[in-house]
Amino acid sequence: MDQHNTKSHGIDTVEMMDDMTFVLFGASGDLAKRKIYPALYNLYIEGKMPNSLSVVGLGRRPYTQEDFHSIIKESLESFSRRDVDESNLDEFLASFRYFIFDAMKDESYQGLKAFIEERESELSIPENRLFYLSVAPKLIEPISASLHENGITDTSGWKRLIVEKPFGSDLHSARHLNAELTKVFQEEEIFRIDHYLGKPMVQNLESLIRPNPILKALWSHEQIANVQITASETVGVGTRAGYYDKAGAIRDMVQNHLLQLVMMTALHHPAKLTPKEIEEKKKAIMESLRPVEEDEISKHVVRGQYEAGEMNAEPIPGYLEEDGVAENSNNDTYFAARLYIDNNYWKGIPFYIRTGKRLEKKSTRIIIEFKNEIDADEDAAGAVSNLLMIEINPNESVGLRINLKDDSNEKFEPAYINFSKNLDAQPEAYENLLNDAMQGHSTYFAHWSEVELSWKWVQPILEAFENDALPLHGYQAGSEGPEAAEKLLNEDGYTWW
Amino acid sequence: MDQHNTKSHGIDTVEMMDDMTFVLFGASGDLAKRKIYPALYNLYIEGKMPNSLSVVGLGRRPYTQEDFHSIIKESLESFSRRDVDESNLDEFLASFRYFIFDAMKDESYQGLKAFIEERESELSIPENRLFYLSVAPKLIEPISASLHENGITDTSGWKRLIVEKPFGSDLHSARHLNAELTKVFQEEEIFRIDHYLGKPMVQNLESLIRPNPILKALWSHEQIANVQITASETVGVGTRAGYYDKAGAIRDMVQNHLLQLVMMTALHHPAKLTPKEIEEKKKAIMESLRPVEEDEISKHVVRGQYEAGEMNAEPIPGYLEEDGVAENSNNDTYFAARLYIDNNYWKGIPFYIRTGKRLEKKSTRIIIEFKNEIDADEDAAGAVSNLLMIEINPNESVGLRINLKDDSNEKFEPAYINFSKNLDAQPEAYENLLNDAMQGHSTYFAHWSEVELSWKWVQPILEAFENDALPLHGYQAGSEGPEAAEKLLNEDGYTWW
Repeated sequence: MDQHNTKSHGIDTVEMMDDMTFVLFGASGDLAKRKIYPALYNLYIEGKMPNSLSVVGLGRRPYTQEDFHSIIKESLESFSRRDVDESNLDEFLASFRYFIFDAMKDESYQGLKAFIEERESELSIPENRLFYLSVAPKLIEPISASLHENGITDTSGWKRLIVEKPFGSDLHSARHLNAELTKVFQEEEIFRIDHYLGKPMVQNLESLIRPNPILKALWSHEQIANVQITASETVGVGTRAGYYDKAGAIRDMVQNHLLQLVMMTALHHPAKLTPKEIEEKKKAIMESLRPVEEDEISKHVVRGQYEAGEMNAEPIPGYLEEDGVAENSNNDTYFAARLYIDNNYWKGIPFYIRTGKRLEKKSTRIIIEFKNEIDADEDAAGAVSNLLMIEINPNESVGLRINLKDDSNEKFEPAYINFSKNLDAQPEAYENLLNDAMQGHSTYFAHWSEVELSWKWVQPILEAFENDALPLHGYQAGSEGPEAAEKLLNEDGYTWW
Repeated sequence: MDQHNTKSHGIDTVEMMDDMTFVLFGASGDLAKRKIYPALYNLYIEGKMPNSLSVVGLGRRPYTQEDFHSIIKESLESFSRRDVDESNLDEFLASFRYFIFDAMKDESYQGLKAFIEERESELSIPENRLFYLSVAPKLIEPISASLHENGITDTSGWKRLIVEKPFGSDLHSARHLNAELTKVFQEEEIFRIDHYLGKPMVQNLESLIRPNPILKALWSHEQIANVQITASETVGVGTRAGYYDKAGAIRDMVQNHLLQLVMMTALHHPAKLTPKEIEEKKKAIMESLRPVEEDEISKHVVRGQYEAGEMNAEPIPGYLEEDGVAENSNNDTYFAARLYIDNNYWKGIPFYIRTGKRLEKKSTRIIIEFKNEIDADEDAAGAVSNLLMIEINPNESVGLRINLKDDSNEKFEPAYINFSKNLDAQPEAYENLLNDAMQGHSTYFAHWSEVELSWKWVQPILEAFENDALPLHGYQAGSEGPEAAEKLLNEDGYTWW
């Protein structure tokens, strides 16, 4: 039983953390090196660690403990946001042990059990076990089952499971996966990572309005015209074509990250919410999300794929020319849609979402456009809609667009007022998420209800894509995306900002 | 009759300007060189000039036309915000003639009349005459009277008078001066310069809210806690001790500039106002300004005088040690006060004003503090009041202070979101004011009702100062001013921002 699970998240995050074993599957993998070790190191520097921690890194490669410590050290030197301090590095590394492991072999699990228990006894720590599955999606289910079958999850302390995306590849497979996992772990023991939820500015969304009367005054149904959520990438598929050509933008970005941003934006609440209330409100938002009827998909959804173009004066190949992409693939590298949340607050206010690869700019941002009732006043020449702009990536900032007299003092022009966070001082998404998981705070993880309802909303669109039931709009690499996405907003009298 | 006077000010300022004679008293003075010639030149560059303009510069010194043109050229080279363009300088200078003039001699006026008429006939322009009195205050009344007596104001076109501050030195002298001037000029022909009203950001105040629904939502009686207006200077009395030691901060800054900023801030209106409505509303604000009762002056007003201190690591003498300051002078170099505007909108919302010399920073700004109803919520640790910050000098900017999660994501900290104008592209106050006066737009000049009501509000405080009826608080040069000014706000639960 997780005694911390119902505690509020916030100023009390430096509370005492239980001693525990952190079992990392995929200890020599890319994610571990780029994100997990640096996150643990920065938490360690900040004192956000249990008194006694046993980290067991698992991998098939026959590393010695020294090899493993070298790998971690290299990872910190390359990826930690803080410089590595040699004076405390040994103390940090002392928690880490490597165990050679093959996820498909039963004897590996028996050995792992003994290894974990030996360290627990050595360190005199309770059987609190956190299993982090940083592995290929197909291994999640068998590992979970084998942990159970081999009694490793049968602890006298608590147990938790962290899993990475993707969580299933459609509604059916996600439900199947969840059913299997919940044979071993309770829902409150499962921490599904959506790293967008770990970003400080996304976590700020929930508390952006509460301590700010002036933002509260703005954030009202009467004043908001629409919400625009953009997650544009400049990169192409890179080395991930094998996965991406099957997943598409819809699985890679929309079902998880973009719908989570929709929930976090729509969540707004004037009072402090408990983690349970946040979970319930997010679920309620997804339940209010108007399903896209089969015959209306092409009205509300734009599918695109990049063609050859130019970026930074370099020629860029089209998606179909990329290595590993199927000939004549009709996979979506761009997705835009109009959504409606049919609850009291958001009724009638459209949410527009878009994401794509090989776009002009890298940017994840949420823009709230306010109603513009000043057109009729001829003396407001030049005035445009006010915007609240929340930039999540690559910078973190909050800004407003207002109208001021221009230099000639004769007409109005838009002025951007902006606050940027100092990124160096910001914790990385994985620091926040690991800290939360180690404390059992599940607020900023994707709960099953959210995952299931997201797949449910996405499912008819997935099927329409598979049946090629709507146009696949080409767009030049380096452009702003297909024109059809602009039309989606123009139909409602708006434009993307 | 001024046919333009009721036209709206704003996008139509590039309308056709009447041909006219611009008679400048004090043509070799400091203000002419630093402000008036550069302003006229920049208006000329922007095409904001009549087709035919006759400028007659008056002074006692026996300059030739060439001398005069050299003075103007030097003035532009030193003080124009735009570089001087040699290719059009001659055309600009061609409008300027010098006339040797002694304001106290009748024959000077007869000569001036002939000189003006000769140029009018030469240029075939109507008898539209703008008299700009950039002269010592004591000369205003005699010049006005002599212009009348010598028939120079007796024109077949329009006539206008521009006067510089100070307009009187107390309620009685201001009323006397105005009575004398209005024997010659109608109120709508008199343009009293308060150069704060010429600053673009001050002019923006009136239209800050109208085109911005999000600022409109903030700007409400329910949400504003208080208004703070600061005009702090780092300079001392310099060479103006003779004047300043008699005037004090109260006459030099409060009666005119600060009370005008109070009016402009309180003016706020959701709809476009006509110049007449602005004038009426400003008058109504001054009529609603709660008089300070004699026995309550020390409760609402803080008087200060700087003592020796340090600025930029240099020792700074105290006020009493300055050249030209009377021994044991109890003159005020610092003034702070709490004001109430007893109208429906501002009832109960205090306005705090302060100004002083030899303060830590040079800054003119208006801060609207919003009510903070979040104290009770323990989870808003670190959150402070939201502010709307309008900076007028030395930068022009509009900003908001909001609360965001701090770097640790554990508590809130204030974040400043800000928009700064590009000052190089901004017209100077005198450009705006001269352009308006030349077109007969009086919106951004101090109307008699405002001047009179300002003196009326100030008068009991002036008298208390003269009778030394309240403490004179010393403050160190380079400090933030006397502690008593901080207490003034602390009493109400606030602090200066």
